Amino acid sequence: MTELLLKVQKREKLADQLYGQILEQIVSGNLGEGTKLPSENEICASFGVSRPVVREALRKLQSDGLVYARQGVGSFVKKRPPQGLIEFGGVNDVAGLLRCFEARIAIEGATARMAAERASVRHHREIENALKTLEDGVAAGDIADKADLDFHMAIARASGNEIFLTILNSLHGVMQKSMNVALNITRSGSADRAKRVLAEHRQIYDAILGRDGDSAELMMRYHLHQARQRVTDHARDM
Amino acid sequence: MTELLLKVQKREKLADQLYGQILEQIVSGNLGEGTKLPSENEICASFGVSRPVVREALRKLQSDGLVYARQGVGSFVKKRPPQGLIEFGGVNDVAGLLRCFEARIAIEGATARMAAERASVRHHREIENALKTLEDGVAAGDIADKADLDFHMAIARASGNEIFLTILNSLHGVMQKSMNVALNITRSGSADRAKRVLAEHRQIYDAILGRDGDSAELMMRYHLHQARQRVTDHARDM
Amino acid sequence: MTELLLKVQKREKLADQLYGQILEQIVSGNLGEGTKLPSENEICASFGVSRPVVREALRKLQSDGLVYARQGVGSFVKKRPPQGLIEFGGVNDVAGLLRCFEARIAIEGATARMAAERASVRHHREIENALKTLEDGVAAGDIADKADLDFHMAIARASGNEIFLTILNSLHGVMQKSMNVALNITRSGSADRAKRVLAEHRQIYDAILGRDGDSAELMMRYHLHQARQRVTDHARDM
Amino acid sequence: MTELLLKVQKREKLADQLYGQILEQIVSGNLGEGTKLPSENEICASFGVSRPVVREALRKLQSDGLVYARQGVGSFVKKRPPQGLIEFGGVNDVAGLLRCFEARIAIEGATARMAAERASVRHHREIENALKTLEDGVAAGDIADKADLDFHMAIARASGNEIFLTILNSLHGVMQKSMNVALNITRSGSADRAKRVLAEHRQIYDAILGRDGDSAELMMRYHLHQARQRVTDHARDM
Repeated sequence: MTELLLKVQKREKLADQLYGQILEQIVSGNLGEGTKLPSENEICASFGVSRPVVREALRKLQSDGLVYARQGVGSFVKKRPPQGLIEFGGVNDVAGLLRCFEARIAIEGATARMAAERASVRHHREIENALKTLEDGVAAGDIADKADLDFHMAIARASGNEIFLTILNSLHGVMQKSMNVALNITRSGSADRAKRVLAEHRQIYDAILGRDGDSAELMMRYHLHQARQRVTDHARDM
Repeated sequence: MTELLLKVQKREKLADQLYGQILEQIVSGNLGEGTKLPSENEICASFGVSRPVVREALRKLQSDGLVYARQGVGSFVKKRPPQGLIEFGGVNDVAGLLRCFEARIAIEGATARMAAERASVRHHREIENALKTLEDGVAAGDIADKADLDFHMAIARASGNEIFLTILNSLHGVMQKSMNVALNITRSGSADRAKRVLAEHRQIYDAILGRDGDSAELMMRYHLHQARQRVTDHARDM
Repeated sequence: MTELLLKVQKREKLADQLYGQILEQIVSGNLGEGTKLPSENEICASFGVSRPVVREALRKLQSDGLVYARQGVGSFVKKRPPQGLIEFGGVNDVAGLLRCFEARIAIEGATARMAAERASVRHHREIENALKTLEDGVAAGDIADKADLDFHMAIARASGNEIFLTILNSLHGVMQKSMNVALNITRSGSADRAKRVLAEHRQIYDAILGRDGDSAELMMRYHLHQARQRVTDHARDM
Repeated sequence: MTELLLKVQKREKLADQLYGQILEQIVSGNLGEGTKLPSENEICASFGVSRPVVREALRKLQSDGLVYARQGVGSFVKKRPPQGLIEFGGVNDVAGLLRCFEARIAIEGATARMAAERASVRHHREIENALKTLEDGVAAGDIADKADLDFHMAIARASGNEIFLTILNSLHGVMQKSMNVALNITRSGSADRAKRVLAEHRQIYDAILGRDGDSAELMMRYHLHQARQRVTDHARDM
């Protein structure tokens, strides 16, 4: 049977420590997909923390899509992020990255809808230029995170609400890192995967150009959701 | 007939200048509710700017809910914000305020849903305390913007995603100003109106406590939408 | 301590039987608000059914907003519908009614958005006429369910998609019954409550007239959510 | 220059007649993608109908995603559905089909979310069986519309609200026809396209199994949106 191994530690943010340790064991494969985690009581005892700390850690693993709960039964490992992910960024970066996608889904879903409803011809051209640079990069075997970022910023600008732009600018660092990770994964993936990443961007662009707010929001949410999946899904090439 | 009077100006952000001038005439009542604005061509000519500038200004007035367009017919004044609003803050503040609400609807709709799904008992207590302070303030005839802000921040904390907290912190200044304006309007309104403002907050709290994510998002969006309405609706006491 | 009393029965739809018995005890007050229900195992034993049956019944009580679950702790009574509700319709009718509101939130949220985006002037007039009849009825102390139904059907017609009309027509019987119950409750309530019901309808109408799809969907969802609350909330006059 | 050719007719539903004639010319290629339609006035004159009739027809073409409007400029052809589509079903069937997808996006978005939140293990198995039958069919070169329908009905059953099941049953005929058309198009498409159709179904299933309501709704909406696109997009193989 797989076993959850915990180093007992006492520091500021115990829940984050616990989150990190469990995440590492999921990534290493010590806790495989579908494995049932020990009960809250058992984790309390073996990690030497109170129940609220355990619950907070489990809630974060759940909201990051790594663990799921079945009522009255317990918590189970949902999926195993690729080993390279942690090598790339460390446990804290991974956590930050996943939460960045969650926030972006809410924010950029709204900017895409507004861009569809309000973009001027000049905005359309800006978004199109970023898309072309992205496509050219892929054709040349070199996907640039800058073009990806430009694409999303051009849409925020087209939303006509500068506050969204300010917010995305404040997330700039995390976004660029997350695009880097995502694009790294894309680069190491098949040509098929790169094609799909481009197709997702094009669908957003088409919906904005067609002034279809519903589709634009849907396509942006779908794209960010898939990008998030590409980060955490172990070796699944789609 | 009411007439649109424009001062010709040349400066950096022409669209914003134009937006401000039209807004001032709507607020002053020179352009009454339901009045048809001059055509794009006419505004181009009388203000001495190009069509893209006129379009951008009209788009912003539309997205701020002050003007609406009827296809093939033209643009019409939708509603007249109260005179006091501009006295309070100036044209730029009003515009910023309206856009702040738009951004908050997207962001806080998401935080409320996540808070309902993830809040711990400690989070519930934090939200409840802010709500009580708000209610006590109203009972004592003194609605505090601090309690209002605390309520919304406690919900963001309960969402379990620190990025939302960072974002709301970066909007802190505008939010506090907008709550100030909104609460000023509430204070000057009837007791009925204050009761409704409290009821909206309580509905959000109830949905989060009941772990009902759908309702929590709905109630938060409804509250912010109504708060926005209270700012721009002329003399409508509800 | 309050106790859950169960009659052992064996018939076709055991989960529905169980649902009905628990609902009756919530309505009668035998199981008060906040009371913890017995564990799944205990209900299995005392009612003589298998665990899947118990789970299905609890899930339905949850989705009807009568019971909520706290993970790892158990299920609790959320609220107590008014006694009159069951006298009016019987347990099955109450269940059908609550589910009808749930379906209507999804369907009519969409029709309201589309109506805002697509309604012609003729459609606007139809919706306005139904609203006026509703308002006149309230002023005369007689709220007519027909005017309420007409209002919602006129919006569905304005959506430009006949399939929504067909669907609402197929729900006609349940909708009329639910409006009847809802309006009965409104009639027996304060003048304040009647005013609020009218205000909710007017907000939907205003959003459709202003061609604001986002608001129209929000206001329709809010109205149906509140109508549903008015049915199940014990004695809360709002 | 391409020209809009109209047969003058007088019958019950003039707007539907006009809709059909314009649709036929878009499908035939007489009105190519990007072509500007004549103005409302010109269509009024050449078709011999009043402006409200012309507007209703244009609104329907817009909401069916075939035409888009640019404010103050006019209406333009957005895309050209494949010739085979009309041969298959006639103009009325095409219109019905597109509206069926629109209704399904609202309804099945909700059923997928509820299924994720409420499905029992038995429901999971039902959905999985339908998915397997669908996958086996594709592997054997034979995509069955029955398995597709079963998949969607199993999700509606898992939503725990029988009203959704009743509604989908009432749409049964149109849904089966629409699946037939969609699957016909898939069959005639590349192996790549079939793979994508299966992937969309699997994403919905994964989200429901993972009890992730947000994703389940998103994935269902995305799938139906793409299915709708596959019907109207001329020869685009994705």
